Amino acid sequence: MPTQTHGYAAHAATTPLAPFSFERRDPLPGDVAIDILFCGVCHSDLHTARGEWGGTIYPCVPGHEIVGRVSAVGSDVTTFKVGDLAGVGCMVDSCGHCPSCTDGEEQFCETTGFVGTYNGPDKESGGHTFGGYSDHIVVDQGFVLKISHEEGALPAVAPLLCAGITTYSPLRHWKVGPGSKVGIVGLGGLGHMGVKIAAAMGAEVYVFSTSPGKRDDAKRLGAKDLIVSKDADALATHANSFDFILDTVAASHDLDPFVALLKRDGTLTLVGVPEHPHPSPTVGALIFKRRAIAGSLIGGIAETQEMLDFCSEHDLVADVEMIRIDEIDTAYDRMVKSDVKYRFVIDMATVAG
Amino acid sequence: MPTQTHGYAAHAATTPLAPFSFERRDPLPGDVAIDILFCGVCHSDLHTARGEWGGTIYPCVPGHEIVGRVSAVGSDVTTFKVGDLAGVGCMVDSCGHCPSCTDGEEQFCETTGFVGTYNGPDKESGGHTFGGYSDHIVVDQGFVLKISHEEGALPAVAPLLCAGITTYSPLRHWKVGPGSKVGIVGLGGLGHMGVKIAAAMGAEVYVFSTSPGKRDDAKRLGAKDLIVSKDADALATHANSFDFILDTVAASHDLDPFVALLKRDGTLTLVGVPEHPHPSPTVGALIFKRRAIAGSLIGGIAETQEMLDFCSEHDLVADVEMIRIDEIDTAYDRMVKSDVKYRFVIDMATVAG
Repeated sequence: MPTQTHGYAAHAATTPLAPFSFERRDPLPGDVAIDILFCGVCHSDLHTARGEWGGTIYPCVPGHEIVGRVSAVGSDVTTFKVGDLAGVGCMVDSCGHCPSCTDGEEQFCETTGFVGTYNGPDKESGGHTFGGYSDHIVVDQGFVLKISHEEGALPAVAPLLCAGITTYSPLRHWKVGPGSKVGIVGLGGLGHMGVKIAAAMGAEVYVFSTSPGKRDDAKRLGAKDLIVSKDADALATHANSFDFILDTVAASHDLDPFVALLKRDGTLTLVGVPEHPHPSPTVGALIFKRRAIAGSLIGGIAETQEMLDFCSEHDLVADVEMIRIDEIDTAYDRMVKSDVKYRFVIDMATVAG
Repeated sequence: MPTQTHGYAAHAATTPLAPFSFERRDPLPGDVAIDILFCGVCHSDLHTARGEWGGTIYPCVPGHEIVGRVSAVGSDVTTFKVGDLAGVGCMVDSCGHCPSCTDGEEQFCETTGFVGTYNGPDKESGGHTFGGYSDHIVVDQGFVLKISHEEGALPAVAPLLCAGITTYSPLRHWKVGPGSKVGIVGLGGLGHMGVKIAAAMGAEVYVFSTSPGKRDDAKRLGAKDLIVSKDADALATHANSFDFILDTVAASHDLDPFVALLKRDGTLTLVGVPEHPHPSPTVGALIFKRRAIAGSLIGGIAETQEMLDFCSEHDLVADVEMIRIDEIDTAYDRMVKSDVKYRFVIDMATVAG
C-alpha cells in the first residue's frame, strides 16, 4: 500500500512553500522506507523552489539532506532493517551500468544522469521525485546510507548528506592529508564543513572570507586562520604556498587571487555554478606553475558512506540551527543574507500529519 | 679567452634583425661550449624580437631550439666531450636549490625563475643572455642536452628543444599512453609535434583545427582524424570522450567546446598565453564531469633529455623548412600568417663569420 506522506511544497516560484500531501510507493523488493526525522536546508532547495535555475517542476518538495529511521524494507534488502538510522543525499537513482556508475561515481552517470532526490524523473511513478521536506521517503537500497553517529547528533548529521560530501569528495580526490596546506573559500554551509573535514584529514587549513568577523569562528571550526580575501597584502604573504583550494562561493568572483596562492601543481576546485560567469582566469598563472582550475560535484554513494563513517569516527557534524517546517520561507530569506551558522535543519516532527 | 661570436640581433621592436657580433665567455669549469649548427624559430622569438610581450632588452639575439657540436668543455665536465652533438633549449640556468629545481622542474624555479636562453639575466656577464641565432654558445653542463639522433637529422631535431618538450611534458604529466584518446588543438609548430609524440606514446590522436585542408597532413603526422573545430556536429559526436586535450593555440578562443569533449576527470591543458583573455570557461562544464583546465610550461632538463631519447628511439623529428639567417624577417612574416610546415630552422652556416 502506498504511504500517505505529509510535507511542504513550493507550488510556484513566487509563493511561499505550503503544506502538501502525496503518496510514496509501497517498498519494492530493493527499497528501504524511511520515516524522516530531520532534513537540512541547502541553497539548491531555495534556488529550485524559487525557480531560479529554470526547470523546476511544481509542486516541488525540496530537501536532500535527509536522516531518519527505517520503517520497512523490501524483500531483497539485507543491509538495512526496521529501526536502523539511515540517510539519503542528493541522489536516489542512476543507470547503474555506465562507466561512472560502475566506478561508484553515480553523480556523473553518463546515460540518464543521476536522479535527483527532488525534481528528478521518478521511473517508478512516471512523475517527478519529491524530497526530504516530508515525513517519509522510499528509496532504492543502493542510494541509502548507514549512519553510525549517536542518535542525539542526528539533526547535525543531516547536512553531511550534501554539504559534507560536496566538500569531502574533492578533498579526498585531490589527496588532502597531513602536510597539505588547504584553503577554503567562503564560510557558509559548505565552507564550514570543508574546514572541519580538511582539518580532520590533518591539513593546515585557512579560510578565505570577505568577513573578518568570522575569524574566531573559522578558528573554532579548525582553521589555522582566516584571511580576508580582499586584503592583497595578507594574500601576498601566502603566494605559491597552497596545495589545494576549495572554492565554495557560487557568486561570480575573480579566481586569480586564489590561483596565485597555489603551489606548482596546485588545484583550485569550484563546487558552485555562478549565475554570471567569473572573470576569465589568467592563463599565464596556470602555465607558469602548472596549476589547474577544476570542478567537483557532490560524491558517489560509496564515498558518501566513507564520509559519514569518517565524520562519525572524528566526531564531526554540522553547526546547525533547527527550524520548524513552517519557518522555511523565513529561513530561505535569511540564507539569502548568509544569516545562518551554518545550516538550517528542519525538525520533521513539526510536519502536521 | 672569450669567443667572438657572430649572429643576428633585433636592435629595436620595429627594425629588421641584423648581423651582430659579441663575445661568449671562456668556458668555466662546469661549462660546455657549442658551435651551433642549426636553430629553430619559435613564435616566442618573434614576440620577443618585436617587443610584443614587453620587457625585451635590445640588442636581442633570439633562439632557443639549438643544436650543435661541442667545441670545448670546462675542467669539471665529464659527460660531454669535444665533438659530441649537443642541444640547448629554453633555459640556461636556474637557482638549483628550490623545491622545483631539486625536483628537476627547473622551468618552475621558485627563487630567481629560470634564466631564459635569451633576454634573461646572465649572472656571469652581468648583462643579458644571447640566444641561438648565432654561431657559438657557452652553457652550464646542467642545461646541455645529449642528442642521439643521427647527424643528418640535426636540423629537424632543433625544434624538439622547445616545441618537442612543450608538448611532451604535458602529455607525460597527464599520463597519455596506449588507450588514451587525445586531442591536439592547433596544427602549427607545437601542434604537429604534439600529434607525433602522442601517437608515438600509443594514444588515439585527433587534431582540432579551423583548417579542414590540414586533414591529410594531420593523418600523415599520426592523427586518426582532423575535426574542424567550428563544426558543432562533428564535435558533438566526440562529446565526453577525450582523456586529455592539449591546446596549443595562443590566440583568444572559446575553451568550452573543447571542455565538452573531455571525459569525466579529463583535463584541457593550455600552453599558450593569449594576448586577450579567452572567454570565461563555463564552470558547470567543469563541475558536472570533474574536469580541469590547466597550464603547462616547457619541461625540466631531465624530462627534456627523456623527450630527446624518446624521439630518437621512435625516429621522431619536426617537419622543418630550412632558411638562411638573412631570411629571418621574412620567416617571421610568414609565421604570422601560419605559412610554415611546421617550423623554420636556421642553417647557422649562413652566418658570416
